[in-house]
Amino acid sequence: MAAGMSAASRAQRQNPDARITVYDRGDYVSYGACGLPYVLGGDVDGWDALVARTPGQMRARGIGVRLRHEVTGLDPAAGTLTVLDRDAGRTLTEPYDRLLLATGVSALRPDWAQTGLGGVHVLREIPDGQAIEASLKGASRAVVVGGGYIGIELTEALRSRGLSVVMLEKAPEIAGRGLDTGNQRRVREELERNGVDVRCGTSVEGLTGRDGRVTGVQTSGGLVRADLVIVAVGVRPNVGLAKAAGVRLGKTGAVAVNIRQETNVAGIYAAGDNTETIHRVTRRKVHIPLGLTANRMGRIAGVNMAGGDATFPGIVGTSIFKFFGLGAARTGLTQAEADALGLKALSVDVKSTDHAGYYKDAQPIHVRLTGEVGTGRLLGAQLIGCRESIKRVDVVAALLGQRADVQALFDADLAYAPPFSGVWDVLLVAADKLKREL
Amino acid sequence: MAAGMSAASRAQRQNPDARITVYDRGDYVSYGACGLPYVLGGDVDGWDALVARTPGQMRARGIGVRLRHEVTGLDPAAGTLTVLDRDAGRTLTEPYDRLLLATGVSALRPDWAQTGLGGVHVLREIPDGQAIEASLKGASRAVVVGGGYIGIELTEALRSRGLSVVMLEKAPEIAGRGLDTGNQRRVREELERNGVDVRCGTSVEGLTGRDGRVTGVQTSGGLVRADLVIVAVGVRPNVGLAKAAGVRLGKTGAVAVNIRQETNVAGIYAAGDNTETIHRVTRRKVHIPLGLTANRMGRIAGVNMAGGDATFPGIVGTSIFKFFGLGAARTGLTQAEADALGLKALSVDVKSTDHAGYYKDAQPIHVRLTGEVGTGRLLGAQLIGCRESIKRVDVVAALLGQRADVQALFDADLAYAPPFSGVWDVLLVAADKLKREL
Repeated sequence: MAAGMSAASRAQRQNPDARITVYDRGDYVSYGACGLPYVLGGDVDGWDALVARTPGQMRARGIGVRLRHEVTGLDPAAGTLTVLDRDAGRTLTEPYDRLLLATGVSALRPDWAQTGLGGVHVLREIPDGQAIEASLKGASRAVVVGGGYIGIELTEALRSRGLSVVMLEKAPEIAGRGLDTGNQRRVREELERNGVDVRCGTSVEGLTGRDGRVTGVQTSGGLVRADLVIVAVGVRPNVGLAKAAGVRLGKTGAVAVNIRQETNVAGIYAAGDNTETIHRVTRRKVHIPLGLTANRMGRIAGVNMAGGDATFPGIVGTSIFKFFGLGAARTGLTQAEADALGLKALSVDVKSTDHAGYYKDAQPIHVRLTGEVGTGRLLGAQLIGCRESIKRVDVVAALLGQRADVQALFDADLAYAPPFSGVWDVLLVAADKLKREL
Repeated sequence: MAAGMSAASRAQRQNPDARITVYDRGDYVSYGACGLPYVLGGDVDGWDALVARTPGQMRARGIGVRLRHEVTGLDPAAGTLTVLDRDAGRTLTEPYDRLLLATGVSALRPDWAQTGLGGVHVLREIPDGQAIEASLKGASRAVVVGGGYIGIELTEALRSRGLSVVMLEKAPEIAGRGLDTGNQRRVREELERNGVDVRCGTSVEGLTGRDGRVTGVQTSGGLVRADLVIVAVGVRPNVGLAKAAGVRLGKTGAVAVNIRQETNVAGIYAAGDNTETIHRVTRRKVHIPLGLTANRMGRIAGVNMAGGDATFPGIVGTSIFKFFGLGAARTGLTQAEADALGLKALSVDVKSTDHAGYYKDAQPIHVRLTGEVGTGRLLGAQLIGCRESIKRVDVVAALLGQRADVQALFDADLAYAPPFSGVWDVLLVAADKLKREL
């Protein structure tokens, strides 16, 4: 959706005469899906606040928007789409010259979650959020299945709404995808400090219910009572339409594209969460669906679809999330990821304060910095700390895009004044330590 | 001082057998001078909090520290120093093999400030701060002469101690050194919002006094009554010792060194605020005395003095300061600086929010980004905003060190989640705008 609207908007700018139509099976286009947990938690003032552009605003720019229209088929040879008008219940055949597949991802619903019981939810779109909001009435006990960043963000929201929360994670720690073990532990401890009952190494076996509503979760560690169950065990790219039309998927399972966002089928582009991209550190194809990446891909696709020429250089694997009083950020590779790729990597851990230790309200910040043995190349960073302090991750992200070495980070002339950092910013302290150990 | 202690510490690590002695004419070594305004303002808990290492701690590491010992002469041919023991009142001659000049800067005291009246102060060292503290008793009206960052930081401190403050600046705007005009105005407006009477285009002609204490400042705009006058009109490098010994100064007036921090005189090194360095964007020699730069130079000098080999790549002109609820940061070149150097530069201004606009407590942030016409090279950035949001300047600083172009900034995979940034971080928005206009 982010990709689709970015593409439409960019294509219109590139070629104001282009006839552009956006089809969406749902009721919304162009909203900040990453904000969904924060509407539930009360940090965003209502669902409408997330809407970036209304269909009316899009139409005023000459972009056609067809909501509640689901594209069910695609015929590249004929250059047509089959579109189901969900309200009218009829099927249309629509021609296209250039087509963008921006079909996004769906939240995984394991078999155990498909019982039809009320109070069991995923969170991908605004209606999911509204359904959770409705389930909150009278609920006091929530179970969140899955300790990834969406599960964590929702857990914070549910706690701030006064619910008790049990988090179930089958892996040995939560926050598993993006952080090395020590940092996973820091995330868990912050959740526990905020009253979350985190149960790792626990798998779900089924749900219990009464009168059509969920009452508990059967786990490998016994029954956990629940009025509300959030299923946040991952996503998968929506590639049915692509597959059926002969559009090639990559090894990641997402749609394969070149740097112009072109698929293997002439005239068909792909962008957004359904699409894989290049990791600039490893040069490998990856599928890491995130908001900025989706927006970027969409812009590139839009320019090219409208006759321009733009390329997407790929990502370096940056992400960030908040959990109660702390946040975690990462970029590049973790030590575990580097090891799995067979790179000879080394990591150092540094603990410091977000600003000068002697200046009021100094808060701890942890930095783990990873580099390549032999070459001295910077490979990645993980930061855990308060407030905006962990946005420092962007310095490493920018340097990773330049394939810079650890020395380049150490030599960076970072800003210092006591309210903003120590004289040696924690990133410099980490780079200093890492270059001595590499 | 920062440079001297960094050098001593690094030299000791490089060669544990080296005999290292630090001479200082004052009572302190190794403290965070940048924190001085914040002790006065109450954001740092007392002068001792600034002390990073005591002489005792240095001595325990085998580094000799002679406080209240002023080096008054230097004979490179003989390899000796003349040192005045200020307490004993006697003069010693001390031999050296390698010598570091880390003599720092002194605050400028114009003729009009040299009246001997009480209540007239500069702020460079802890005793200056203690003298201001003493003058605060019974004072209600302060005049701060000079609208640079030290004047601004002190103004905030004095306001938080309940004084009225008149700031006098002879230039058309305050914060003149580091920001372009629009941003200078933003700084002034925040000071005015916080009750500071800022008078630009106003020069000082003299002081009035009674019973040996200052009572007012005679200005080009009339008499301003004052119980306390802060003189913050700039600094000059302490180069007397260097000059007398035949150590070459650069065009900036500070001591000239090579990238190993060696002066033109064999065995004599220089580091810190008294020393010039290379600006990595312009490749020119500059004298921009700041804490991190001083520390870095000191480390390089220390390694080399003890037989190692280290080089200092220079700076990119990054600085940051806080003023009431806002902060300003800059790196690289301003448009005015680029113009003065004859570069064909262009700047764009972008206003956004520090995090997603729909997420609670979003605060405005202004970014001015400057690039080179023709080459697309990134030249600099200025940020004004709340809290830590302006530490984003470090992303641009790191890229400037890589001589990256504006496209590289735009392509940077910066971290996004609603509590931390918009999906397009304000730096990306600025880079997007700039690359389209370049």
